[in-house]
Amino acid sequence: MRHDHLITSKQLSRADIETVLDRAAEIDADPSAVADRHANSVLGLLFFEPSTRTKMSFETAMKRLGGSVIDMGSIESSSVKKGETLADTVRVTEGYADALVLRHPKQGSATMASEFVDVPLLNAGDGAGHHPTQTLLDLYTIRENAGLDDLTIGIMGDLKYGRTVHSLAYALTNFDTRQHFISPESLQLPREVVYDLHQQGNTQIREHESLDDVLPSLDVLYVTRIQRERFPDENEYQKIAGEYQIDLETLEDARDDLTVMHPLPRVDEIAPEIDDTDHAAYFEQAHNGIPVRMALLDILLENNSDADTRGEDDE
Amino acid sequence: MRHDHLITSKQLSRADIETVLDRAAEIDADPSAVADRHANSVLGLLFFEPSTRTKMSFETAMKRLGGSVIDMGSIESSSVKKGETLADTVRVTEGYADALVLRHPKQGSATMASEFVDVPLLNAGDGAGHHPTQTLLDLYTIRENAGLDDLTIGIMGDLKYGRTVHSLAYALTNFDTRQHFISPESLQLPREVVYDLHQQGNTQIREHESLDDVLPSLDVLYVTRIQRERFPDENEYQKIAGEYQIDLETLEDARDDLTVMHPLPRVDEIAPEIDDTDHAAYFEQAHNGIPVRMALLDILLENNSDADTRGEDDE
Amino acid sequence: MRHDHLITSKQLSRADIETVLDRAAEIDADPSAVADRHANSVLGLLFFEPSTRTKMSFETAMKRLGGSVIDMGSIESSSVKKGETLADTVRVTEGYADALVLRHPKQGSATMASEFVDVPLLNAGDGAGHHPTQTLLDLYTIRENAGLDDLTIGIMGDLKYGRTVHSLAYALTNFDTRQHFISPESLQLPREVVYDLHQQGNTQIREHESLDDVLPSLDVLYVTRIQRERFPDENEYQKIAGEYQIDLETLEDARDDLTVMHPLPRVDEIAPEIDDTDHAAYFEQAHNGIPVRMALLDILLENNSDADTRGEDDE
Repeated sequence: MRHDHLITSKQLSRADIETVLDRAAEIDADPSAVADRHANSVLGLLFFEPSTRTKMSFETAMKRLGGSVIDMGSIESSSVKKGETLADTVRVTEGYADALVLRHPKQGSATMASEFVDVPLLNAGDGAGHHPTQTLLDLYTIRENAGLDDLTIGIMGDLKYGRTVHSLAYALTNFDTRQHFISPESLQLPREVVYDLHQQGNTQIREHESLDDVLPSLDVLYVTRIQRERFPDENEYQKIAGEYQIDLETLEDARDDLTVMHPLPRVDEIAPEIDDTDHAAYFEQAHNGIPVRMALLDILLENNSDADTRGEDDE
Repeated sequence: MRHDHLITSKQLSRADIETVLDRAAEIDADPSAVADRHANSVLGLLFFEPSTRTKMSFETAMKRLGGSVIDMGSIESSSVKKGETLADTVRVTEGYADALVLRHPKQGSATMASEFVDVPLLNAGDGAGHHPTQTLLDLYTIRENAGLDDLTIGIMGDLKYGRTVHSLAYALTNFDTRQHFISPESLQLPREVVYDLHQQGNTQIREHESLDDVLPSLDVLYVTRIQRERFPDENEYQKIAGEYQIDLETLEDARDDLTVMHPLPRVDEIAPEIDDTDHAAYFEQAHNGIPVRMALLDILLENNSDADTRGEDDE
Repeated sequence: MRHDHLITSKQLSRADIETVLDRAAEIDADPSAVADRHANSVLGLLFFEPSTRTKMSFETAMKRLGGSVIDMGSIESSSVKKGETLADTVRVTEGYADALVLRHPKQGSATMASEFVDVPLLNAGDGAGHHPTQTLLDLYTIRENAGLDDLTIGIMGDLKYGRTVHSLAYALTNFDTRQHFISPESLQLPREVVYDLHQQGNTQIREHESLDDVLPSLDVLYVTRIQRERFPDENEYQKIAGEYQIDLETLEDARDDLTVMHPLPRVDEIAPEIDDTDHAAYFEQAHNGIPVRMALLDILLENNSDADTRGEDDE
């Protein structure tokens, strides 16, 4: 992977993705081999909106590499409150840290911020924009459970607003996949995303309003949360959300080796009775955030220290 | 100690308690011997209600063992806000951490959570339930200052609501002790606690409304805070709280080697003039949280890695 | 430096300052030499008012020395909320940490707190009082860019309320300097500060309402923020603040090697077009917080462990 920053999964070629997933698999197999690998490195966390899960996962990944983490904390108590620009915030903090993780509510902010810093910057979500490390851990989980080629995947729930879903669908076009999108009409994939996916090479795209037709053919079912706040009417929400929830009965027609995924947190989308079946891969999926983010940090910190060395040779 | 989790001090036998206290004493005598002992371990802190003191103490203990700490942060910014269940939260975070510390406002939550995880879970307070690490540091402080056998202890203040007090009283029944409970009538020990204590072996239980009668016989006086919010009437609070505060004058009839303890924070229960006397053991008591929690973490992480190894041998 | 605590820059002699700056320069030149130097030490952060920047800088410094950091967190969730005194808080936390950093809104609080603890205490700001580590990083930045002797410096903006400015001005009287103070009349240096500065040895003091007269003579221009909340009238603020902002045009008459500094965060005081010129030293200045705080922590932790050893020899 020859990048300084990780902003979007669109920047990643099939080879880049495989480099990260292979490294993650190596680390997963023997974490102790990298336990002191970045012992003198510091990772800076800049979260301009709350996201405990992603933050803890990055923090754990860095510490499992032997490194340290510093956290800007909530924006309530930060210089941002005093009117500091994002450009200034990242230029100050790059003096503290060897890499930065940025989450920001504004789309495009990660790209902008990356232009002001020399240390690697990882986008951990920029509004309706991208969240590439979630995509990579999703791909890793799919690869481990079903393989990434000759894959039939169903992606169900809120396909309109879910940036997780758009990033994943886009990344899967690097592989030989059949993608089925299952949602109520009001939460379908945006037309420009469908258009974009059709432009890519290896993927077939189908849209459905019901899971029934496609379930028996699926290797993977990726469920997302339908958010209450998308619906002006509570009854309407209850009725629609109910149709896109799964339980043991729903899965009767599924293949025995169907893998069920969910980015978590879930509310009612997946009944707890599924947790103990072999279908359930969502906790494993969350746990995969650690080796995948370790792999990414390892690669980017390594690239960067190579770059530093090259710089010194030139002088 | 053959436990995977630490949920309540009631689960601890006399031998268990002595194992922890002996290990704490060893660590206290030579902390440098364990300074890198758990260098590649991560402790996860899940505090569903604020408790800076307990959190800092666990964090320090883990870092003094060479380990790392990750913190879920406030629930305001967490997945819990989105409706995640406690069972899901602990199942996700056990993928990040080698042990978990849980504080939760709901009684019984620690027991429930422990059923969902394989890593050791330590209860740091579950509502009106238990807080076993506080009890262990109290026992350690008593043992260091007065010994745990042939002990006469007075426990004074709010005995009705204080879970600290109930846990300690219960744990002391493992030893040869005389326990005097001193409180206003409205804040007496609950009858079921008294009943429970009487069922145990080695302890004598007496209740008093005034400290005067028993003070001269005490080895240890354990003072707790009477909380303003327990009283509908401010004057009533002032009058009653005043009677259960101690100063140099109060202690005139005490033995020279009386040890005064308090779980802290204190407000007016102990006059600052006592701080510089040999009676005062409350700061030492707070500091003892470090070796005691180090000992516990050491034992539970050790048990767990033994369990992992045994598991592997079986396969 | 023979001090146990760092409370105010007034306690520092010229020799003390040079000891810290020399150590910082050594660390800056080869940070890897100290990367594990305080591997078994813990730094406690007690921030009674928010200050992300200073907190992150101390945290980074400690971690770059190989050490660990524990954080009291916000006072909202702490024992302080329950009515604990500052004296009790520091006495408890000194049992957890090898050194403490305190920020508190009340002037004099750092001095008071330091009287209750044996571990080194560093003042990170006590209300309108002192903020000595900011002063030391300012001095370090001036020394690196312009030298501290035979220096002509302009200090501009809010000179009435800015504790940063008072501390810096005072510390500079240890060196052979000419200090020009540029501000609107309503935000001039307090008369007692001017008097104090005049009492010191090596410095010349001049006050101005406009930058124009002195700009061509300056080696360093130190800009501070004029805060909106100081002015009852928004128009008045806009008019005055506008006169003390600098851009490329303002700097036309400046020397080519003029160094522009700012404690950050900035709002509109320095136009972004200056960022890419050789004048701009404010990001470097923020980054200098790391080696300077590393040097301070190193010296104070070292002093303290010497003191411990001496103590033991005496017994």
